[in-house]
Amino acid sequence: MKAPASPFLCVLAGEALDAPPIWIMRQAGRYLPEYRETRARAGSFLDLCYNPALAAEVTLQPIRRFGFDASIVFSDILVVPDALGQPVSFHEGEGPRLPPLENAAAIAKLDPAKTGAVFEKVYETVERVCAGLGDTPLIGFCGAPWTVATYMIAGRGTPDQAPARLWAYRDPASFQALIDLLVETSVGYLVGQIKAGARAVMIFDSWAGVLPQAEFERWCAAPAAAVAKGVRERASGTPIIGFPRGANENYASFVAATDADALGCDTTMTPEFMTALAARCAVQGNLDPLALVAGGAALEDGARRILAAMRGKRHIFNLGHGILPETPVEHVEKLIALVRAGG
Amino acid sequence: MKAPASPFLCVLAGEALDAPPIWIMRQAGRYLPEYRETRARAGSFLDLCYNPALAAEVTLQPIRRFGFDASIVFSDILVVPDALGQPVSFHEGEGPRLPPLENAAAIAKLDPAKTGAVFEKVYETVERVCAGLGDTPLIGFCGAPWTVATYMIAGRGTPDQAPARLWAYRDPASFQALIDLLVETSVGYLVGQIKAGARAVMIFDSWAGVLPQAEFERWCAAPAAAVAKGVRERASGTPIIGFPRGANENYASFVAATDADALGCDTTMTPEFMTALAARCAVQGNLDPLALVAGGAALEDGARRILAAMRGKRHIFNLGHGILPETPVEHVEKLIALVRAGG
Repeated sequence: MKAPASPFLCVLAGEALDAPPIWIMRQAGRYLPEYRETRARAGSFLDLCYNPALAAEVTLQPIRRFGFDASIVFSDILVVPDALGQPVSFHEGEGPRLPPLENAAAIAKLDPAKTGAVFEKVYETVERVCAGLGDTPLIGFCGAPWTVATYMIAGRGTPDQAPARLWAYRDPASFQALIDLLVETSVGYLVGQIKAGARAVMIFDSWAGVLPQAEFERWCAAPAAAVAKGVRERASGTPIIGFPRGANENYASFVAATDADALGCDTTMTPEFMTALAARCAVQGNLDPLALVAGGAALEDGARRILAAMRGKRHIFNLGHGILPETPVEHVEKLIALVRAGG
Repeated sequence: MKAPASPFLCVLAGEALDAPPIWIMRQAGRYLPEYRETRARAGSFLDLCYNPALAAEVTLQPIRRFGFDASIVFSDILVVPDALGQPVSFHEGEGPRLPPLENAAAIAKLDPAKTGAVFEKVYETVERVCAGLGDTPLIGFCGAPWTVATYMIAGRGTPDQAPARLWAYRDPASFQALIDLLVETSVGYLVGQIKAGARAVMIFDSWAGVLPQAEFERWCAAPAAAVAKGVRERASGTPIIGFPRGANENYASFVAATDADALGCDTTMTPEFMTALAARCAVQGNLDPLALVAGGAALEDGARRILAAMRGKRHIFNLGHGILPETPVEHVEKLIALVRAGG
């Protein structure tokens, strides 16, 4: 492994910096006019994900404009089910749609041997981005098995992930088979992104916050730990960022299980909790995206509270959730200046 | 105040019982055939809430059928905005709709003097239920100011309460005016239910889980504390149950601010956290409603884990969220038998 050459990699390697590195979830997105322009040329959302030239272009746009300390490949967590043979589509304002998995037989029909053709497009995007990035490190990512499974079973995003939770209660054996398939596929997918040039990987468990503790440990923490272990075995030394969004008290068992190098923190996590967590690993977060939309005192007070609490700790500044399309670009500029000035 | 005559009131007064008392959120609801029959005769959902004879009937149905240890008046948290002059309607499968508050002037038009006509119907329901209940205590309730405000501003339920959060960031002064109005109205409404016969009151803060700590303290904890204080001043000795659903790490500051006699715990709260909380007050919860839908091992394991963790503590058994319409009645019977047997 090369010596860390960036503030972002330094913090992942265990350092605390005076001014934390900053990047923003969904930093390549609709709040940027240049993104909207490229998006309009691409066709569908998935067409953009699968077009290495255009996906690399939108990945690089926020780096060029703002000089963020990390880049993240433009893609989607549902690339994995799409690659496994469960076709995904996105409709404006409606979110993703998949033909829902109906039963154990449908799980058995998913085919890991099919994934190469899709994953290669993402790897090519990673290569193109790395060629254009200079020293800024690129983050590869995937959805966590639990979160991806909730979409595959419901066929869409749901407010409480009830279809997957109910399946797991009624038929834990077949649910485990789906999770195992996603663990294996996700390891290969992350390792492929690392081989293509990603310097860190992030596992997004967006729906980790709905499960009772026993189910959290079985369906969130254990599968994420298996993904992390598989990546370490095949791409040793690449830092791993976990993000069990909303898991709150379960963060402690999550970090113990996964031994993650860093954890994403959602908007509601308290400074006390993040500080305690930073004794175990780097922490990343957690400004409210709506404070960034609002700007003014909401933005300044919110960012300063986080910076003050995390001073001297292993901290990567980020939002607690993805940036919203209605966010004014000037507010992002203001935030970066504030973070780089140390508060 | 009369000496507690029920297991439910004993636990609220500080005792720990071998087999905890049990009631279920939304126990008067669509999973019961007798509820569906009454509901069909009532007209709209709000027509049922505002019909004291029928509302009392559905409140009593689950007590007659299951012998729950507490009853809760059949009503809705949106009775308060409806009473204040912001008309609420419910559409099957769509949830509530209100004409959204547009600006500070719309808040100023809400009229606490108008609430009497609506609230009197609920008080009459409370009186009728108490007459039919025997020794089973009745719980009165309201929505917490924050949660009610999110509906009043958005005009509907929203996945992340963004409209209210954004209003509070952009114009905290007018948002505070709305919260203050809701505090004052809620105190009067809860005191009215107590005078009509309620033996405990519960404050439902269903959307407490979306706010950063500073905003949680200002918009959730402080208003709930003001409601609790107002109720104590005017109806001393009536136990108060708080339920800042999803607030997780913020429960500690919530209980410190409100001095609640009991706290509702949502599905995701760990046994360790509930046990620690039980040193401060009684705790109520927290079986996953989907485990009750699934039945079998999911139901038995889930319930037994909670009972084992809370043995010897001040515990009221409940779900972590409202019972779902698709829940088989036999699963409720099974749960009650299991809880009454102590696990």
